[in-house]
Amino acid sequence: MKEERTAILHIHCRDQKGIVAAVTGFVHQHNGNVLHLDQHVDFEQDVFFMRMEWTLADFDLELPEFSRAFEPLAKQYSIDWEIFDSAEPIRMAIFVSKMSHCLYDILSRHESGEFPVEIPLVISNHADCGHIVERFGIPFQHLPVTPENKAEQEQAQLALLDEHQVDFVVLARYMQILTPQLVDRYPNRIINIHHSFLPAFAGARPYHAAYARGVKIIGATSHYVTAELDAGPIIEQDIIRVSHRETINDFIRRGRDLEKAVLSRAIWLHIRRQILVYSNKTVLFG
Amino acid sequence: MKEERTAILHIHCRDQKGIVAAVTGFVHQHNGNVLHLDQHVDFEQDVFFMRMEWTLADFDLELPEFSRAFEPLAKQYSIDWEIFDSAEPIRMAIFVSKMSHCLYDILSRHESGEFPVEIPLVISNHADCGHIVERFGIPFQHLPVTPENKAEQEQAQLALLDEHQVDFVVLARYMQILTPQLVDRYPNRIINIHHSFLPAFAGARPYHAAYARGVKIIGATSHYVTAELDAGPIIEQDIIRVSHRETINDFIRRGRDLEKAVLSRAIWLHIRRQILVYSNKTVLFG
Amino acid sequence: MKEERTAILHIHCRDQKGIVAAVTGFVHQHNGNVLHLDQHVDFEQDVFFMRMEWTLADFDLELPEFSRAFEPLAKQYSIDWEIFDSAEPIRMAIFVSKMSHCLYDILSRHESGEFPVEIPLVISNHADCGHIVERFGIPFQHLPVTPENKAEQEQAQLALLDEHQVDFVVLARYMQILTPQLVDRYPNRIINIHHSFLPAFAGARPYHAAYARGVKIIGATSHYVTAELDAGPIIEQDIIRVSHRETINDFIRRGRDLEKAVLSRAIWLHIRRQILVYSNKTVLFG
Amino acid sequence: MKEERTAILHIHCRDQKGIVAAVTGFVHQHNGNVLHLDQHVDFEQDVFFMRMEWTLADFDLELPEFSRAFEPLAKQYSIDWEIFDSAEPIRMAIFVSKMSHCLYDILSRHESGEFPVEIPLVISNHADCGHIVERFGIPFQHLPVTPENKAEQEQAQLALLDEHQVDFVVLARYMQILTPQLVDRYPNRIINIHHSFLPAFAGARPYHAAYARGVKIIGATSHYVTAELDAGPIIEQDIIRVSHRETINDFIRRGRDLEKAVLSRAIWLHIRRQILVYSNKTVLFG
Repeated sequence: MKEERTAILHIHCRDQKGIVAAVTGFVHQHNGNVLHLDQHVDFEQDVFFMRMEWTLADFDLELPEFSRAFEPLAKQYSIDWEIFDSAEPIRMAIFVSKMSHCLYDILSRHESGEFPVEIPLVISNHADCGHIVERFGIPFQHLPVTPENKAEQEQAQLALLDEHQVDFVVLARYMQILTPQLVDRYPNRIINIHHSFLPAFAGARPYHAAYARGVKIIGATSHYVTAELDAGPIIEQDIIRVSHRETINDFIRRGRDLEKAVLSRAIWLHIRRQILVYSNKTVLFG
Repeated sequence: MKEERTAILHIHCRDQKGIVAAVTGFVHQHNGNVLHLDQHVDFEQDVFFMRMEWTLADFDLELPEFSRAFEPLAKQYSIDWEIFDSAEPIRMAIFVSKMSHCLYDILSRHESGEFPVEIPLVISNHADCGHIVERFGIPFQHLPVTPENKAEQEQAQLALLDEHQVDFVVLARYMQILTPQLVDRYPNRIINIHHSFLPAFAGARPYHAAYARGVKIIGATSHYVTAELDAGPIIEQDIIRVSHRETINDFIRRGRDLEKAVLSRAIWLHIRRQILVYSNKTVLFG
Repeated sequence: MKEERTAILHIHCRDQKGIVAAVTGFVHQHNGNVLHLDQHVDFEQDVFFMRMEWTLADFDLELPEFSRAFEPLAKQYSIDWEIFDSAEPIRMAIFVSKMSHCLYDILSRHESGEFPVEIPLVISNHADCGHIVERFGIPFQHLPVTPENKAEQEQAQLALLDEHQVDFVVLARYMQILTPQLVDRYPNRIINIHHSFLPAFAGARPYHAAYARGVKIIGATSHYVTAELDAGPIIEQDIIRVSHRETINDFIRRGRDLEKAVLSRAIWLHIRRQILVYSNKTVLFG
Repeated sequence: MKEERTAILHIHCRDQKGIVAAVTGFVHQHNGNVLHLDQHVDFEQDVFFMRMEWTLADFDLELPEFSRAFEPLAKQYSIDWEIFDSAEPIRMAIFVSKMSHCLYDILSRHESGEFPVEIPLVISNHADCGHIVERFGIPFQHLPVTPENKAEQEQAQLALLDEHQVDFVVLARYMQILTPQLVDRYPNRIINIHHSFLPAFAGARPYHAAYARGVKIIGATSHYVTAELDAGPIIEQDIIRVSHRETINDFIRRGRDLEKAVLSRAIWLHIRRQILVYSNKTVLFG
């Protein structure tokens, strides 16, 4: 069932009577067989969200025609929408610094077929992970960053992302803060992993801060990158319990497992088109 | 929004094209405003499930008429369905033995308004919890059970449940095995809490068995009672980590917290009509 | 084994060679049978911690004599120490406001014998919980607090705590900030429950703040109260996962279960003398 | 502090008065500086366990002499003991079949220095993972197993383990059942990962069994291998929550993350000499 070609439709609009009936009716008229339908109403903000996935086997519209056919309905309900074709390849770039744990985790999942994406390149401000990336047969771009050349190197990064037609970027413990010139080009398309349960311990050295505060749980948070540091829409979080016996080094070591797991779950949700973003929050469907 | 009177519809049938459009279209035609819609397809068994909740304020059918109006659609798709009126009171009976922790937890939630149900009576095979029940102003029925009088006492229990028009029963650590004469009268309407992560450690003394096996996690499971002991549809499970330092008494003490929490979550889901049962499994919506 | 009368010794001092041998040797010389021994070294701060519990059956010192006999050793190693007699009753006061969930949880545990303490009184700034407390046969003191009378009412609270020889205080969702005149009288003897995973969402309305931020986990934290709001030594924390489907009311409802469990675990650790406090952190033994 | 050369002593014996004082006194006499001391008494079985770690810098016994010096004390208390030198290299072999996720996880941790062991070889009954192992510069031995050649291939495996002086073996989703001829040679030295929360779903296809039973949590268990399948001493377990929305493929995919994490935690504990085994259970120290 999984391997069938499907269309995935994301919708949000003001909450209105009849919206589900209208949209499901439209897909049914065109002979689409709905596999998954999730809807959610944020009653506080009065917003309706829906994700629908249907098989394209008998659907009588080609996806490029969908827009024209759906537009009248979209207008009537003032719907913001986006449609995805499951057969369309997704191109993911990875940014990494010196630490390899998230990188290895992502590349081995990709190699085993778990992440159905193309990885045209890995970019790093350090040379350390180059040999790992090359083992997996993926081009590695070493772009060292200094305060002086940062703007320039971000231009080089942007050029590479363009050239390789990258759809989204994963910051796999990339230890540089991106500037708006890069962030604004990939809205809700840059996924970061931060090593704390945000909003606690935003910024630098969160494990040290957690240790100093004497917390009994530590966490990790994956989120979309926005202009404000560590403040973008949260996709996934998880935690582990810690005790007084553990040193900062234990936090760092055990935290790596959290970071790997949380980042990879966020990538999975993004690839599967299960994330809708609204008001700096995520709605996770499926 | 919560306090509005709503209708809740449960559906399951063979998976078919157009089913969501048909049912949401029907509710829309009668001017229902959908608050929640959840659907799920079990592709393995080819079964479609849906739970829909809509406001009755502008709905142009009285619920008693709903059946007649919906029947043609239900026939067309061979739908099994059930409808609930959120304004209809739900009557819950509690069975308890000597241990009071689940009982207190349920009664204090009820008193604070968390569980919007009526509790017409608590039945026990022991007198121990009588004073607790009476503090809450609820009738307490002491029906001691021996191997000899068990069938007879179950008849007395059934008579009481009938008399008080009980909708569902909660076994709050009731230490008697129910016979089919009682179980069969309340299919998917008797909720038990078992103090292990089923299917591990079914039957008697699960904490002792867990201790003997040297597990690193212990759990609790709430499920609907069926003819086979501890084998009914699982509603909710949770676990805690344990260590070699903990004795059986620690397992029992810490397990009580699990039991309370897991049982109360199951009651909540049942009251909210969020549980659909199929093939000895539960689909949990909302 | 549990019911035997025991001595519990807490120690901390600069880390030194031979300290464990010296202290265990001392207890052995006096014929104490060690049941539990936990030690921890904070290498960063170079501090040694130990908790030892031994049976008093054959111990050849009465606890009042212990001090004199142990003093030379304590001086030699510059040990800070405290000794407890498991047979000595512990007196716990509860402060509560309008919400009853933590109160019920504590009182029902106490009634069932889980918390081996005496509860001489419950103090509240509202009358709402009075009937609950009285059901359990415990005196209830209603001391309404306004900005004008706050200092005066705290004096009344202190007088009551003195009069009833209270050892420690539990703030069971008490919605007033204590002033230093009260806090300073019970250092590391006032346990609060805060409804967030501190340090995230300190202060008022943490569930609302968590909802606004779009977090995927919410938490609760029990800690000793210090002069700085929500910044005292953390005793216990726990979390639950939440989703976009949940409203603030769901956070509040589900959070109550966390608050109950986390607060009760902190009380348990305190009663069992398992908590050592140092540098605004807790070392939890056993 | 971590990098200092240390001795680690494991002890178990009948619980006796004065045992801690005697052993810590012995180490102190020989000028050992204790870094970690953990003790545990199983009151049910009346067994005393201890793990002590001290620095060797000023210790006045060479470890080979330790045995002779400690023997009188060991005799006096009938102590079973084992001592480890942190500077002694540990040699770990990995057995793998077709699935690479645990293998990658272990090898990348090893490469980053997280696992301070030597990996002289990886053995597999399939050729699939050969290219992965070789990328890490580790010898790969392909020993295909059929019902006919199983005994013979186990002899070849044993010969390789001998030849490479392997201390312990990790079964990283190795899909063959080991026979006693292999198991008995490495008592408490073969670590397996089973993809269920044992004792639930022992044996083949646990995810399928979990799916059929409709559980709400799935788990993974690492344990030492004994003659009885999936019944050895449990080292570590963990779980994740699942929902009706998830298929068996989701269980398998998400379970891989559990398996990786749980197996690697068990390896860490084993390497750090933190595991004592007794009565088919583990005592985990530190």
